[in-house]
Amino acid sequence: MTKLDESSIIKVFQRRLGNKNFVSEDVEVFSFGKTKIIAKTDTLVESTDIPPKMKLEDAARKSIVACVSDFAAKGIKPQYGIISVNFPSNISHTKIEDAAKGFRKACKEFKISILGGDTNAGREIVFNVCLFRISNDIVLRRGAKNKDLIFATGPFGYTAAGLSILLHKKKGKREFVKKAVKSVLRPKPRVDFGVRNKKYFSSSMDSSDGLSTTLNEMSKQSKKRFVITNSPHKKDLEDFARSQKLNQDKLVFHGGEEYEFLFTINSKYKKTILKNAKLLKTPIIEIGYVTTGKGVVLQRNNKEIPLKDHGWKHFR
Amino acid sequence: MTKLDESSIIKVFQRRLGNKNFVSEDVEVFSFGKTKIIAKTDTLVESTDIPPKMKLEDAARKSIVACVSDFAAKGIKPQYGIISVNFPSNISHTKIEDAAKGFRKACKEFKISILGGDTNAGREIVFNVCLFRISNDIVLRRGAKNKDLIFATGPFGYTAAGLSILLHKKKGKREFVKKAVKSVLRPKPRVDFGVRNKKYFSSSMDSSDGLSTTLNEMSKQSKKRFVITNSPHKKDLEDFARSQKLNQDKLVFHGGEEYEFLFTINSKYKKTILKNAKLLKTPIIEIGYVTTGKGVVLQRNNKEIPLKDHGWKHFR
Repeated sequence: MTKLDESSIIKVFQRRLGNKNFVSEDVEVFSFGKTKIIAKTDTLVESTDIPPKMKLEDAARKSIVACVSDFAAKGIKPQYGIISVNFPSNISHTKIEDAAKGFRKACKEFKISILGGDTNAGREIVFNVCLFRISNDIVLRRGAKNKDLIFATGPFGYTAAGLSILLHKKKGKREFVKKAVKSVLRPKPRVDFGVRNKKYFSSSMDSSDGLSTTLNEMSKQSKKRFVITNSPHKKDLEDFARSQKLNQDKLVFHGGEEYEFLFTINSKYKKTILKNAKLLKTPIIEIGYVTTGKGVVLQRNNKEIPLKDHGWKHFR
Repeated sequence: MTKLDESSIIKVFQRRLGNKNFVSEDVEVFSFGKTKIIAKTDTLVESTDIPPKMKLEDAARKSIVACVSDFAAKGIKPQYGIISVNFPSNISHTKIEDAAKGFRKACKEFKISILGGDTNAGREIVFNVCLFRISNDIVLRRGAKNKDLIFATGPFGYTAAGLSILLHKKKGKREFVKKAVKSVLRPKPRVDFGVRNKKYFSSSMDSSDGLSTTLNEMSKQSKKRFVITNSPHKKDLEDFARSQKLNQDKLVFHGGEEYEFLFTINSKYKKTILKNAKLLKTPIIEIGYVTTGKGVVLQRNNKEIPLKDHGWKHFR
């Protein structure tokens, strides 16, 4: 039996449901008359998404963050939420309190009103969050134009490093370990930056499936070639990769779960974007440019290496 | 460690989220300006909700039915849906096709447009469905008045009987077994009857947590006493209960998963309701009346027996 990856499952659902939009945008948009509702659902599964040492309070928050981050990438803030939880029947009261506490705090942090939800018994913990708001105006994944600049909020690589520390007992300098583990346990979506700057974006996408996956999806949907000239990472990540014998590009481009986002802009907005990023204390990094053609390439030493979609996938 | 039941988990979430409405109505209602959105989420978990012999196609349909039934009880039809699925990583391609087929057919059956969703890896199959529509007008669980009549769409008991056949190898007459098993595998929510008659309902509630749970919740929220004079079952259920040495009241009142609904009406609407039910081929049964006081009682041989909330719960 061949193992199925997520994209082949998505293809089955797209074909069967006759809906090419199944998972083709960061958020779902639906209209009732003139009213457009933006919705996003995300599921966090114990065996796949909760690393050791992660408290249920943080896991609950992260399941909210995953949706908030998709909204942020589209330039909007969610307003309402519905939460479904599955718990094994032998779970302790304390753990349920922790989970509920995490949801409450996250809703306060991101100003979301929880409307309701449902509770279920299951073999493992599953949190399913669905967030909503009304908006007429979202930035799409497609829309990048020739000569647009490609930016990332960032930096990247800490999450993959953090997971390698939590799951595979990799070692690093104390400050680095703290930063990397925090990026896994308490990710910070860039909501304010997204909301205040969306008018400059020609396209944008949440990066949580991995930088290479995100770039390839944006390139494909925009029908443009994305040339990456700059890897959005810091020096401390290079040191960690070298000392732990890990592939640095893999950490930066194929890790995933960063909850940063990518966006493209006309170069005339570059100054404004950089100023706004400074004001909002959101680190942003120019990583390349858009041109005619297709695919994503990494430019290094005057050579172009194809950057394939090897981001983080379920079912691997 | 004491086992937690669903209501104690709901209490923790209500307290922590400061939201008394967490699971206090069949559907969630949220407003953006003057627009009211009705939403409902439901989760179907393999280990808890998929009995042996149930195909994934039927399980997918049932996860849609569970939400549709809540809408039906409130007198509305859903219009849009978002689907989240978890699959174990070793699942076969055929099973994924079956699930997707089930979702497609159910969406066609109930005229729902699927907007999107997400796919995840997990230890077991989980289907999470969230359905939506705009509506300014839903019937609430509270609102029953003195002297109102209590009705149920029905009959009840087949589902519990069907589960006892599927799970505990109980035996019955061929026709009965077919009917009972079908009520588990292919439940039919009473959408048309709900939509066309809601204007007559003073209160209503989906019965899928069990008849006793539903009656107690409606009585509590309406602050009235519900007197049940008539058990909504048929003769063939009595025969099955007797032959299999099962408690008939337990099958009828405490089974659950019927996807029928209960409603109360002013007696002046009785004729109209009965006529409409006949036209729509929806069997409805008058089961009692509303009076001052609290709680739910079963009237038998001129005696009143308290009918406690012993409906179907997760975590039992």
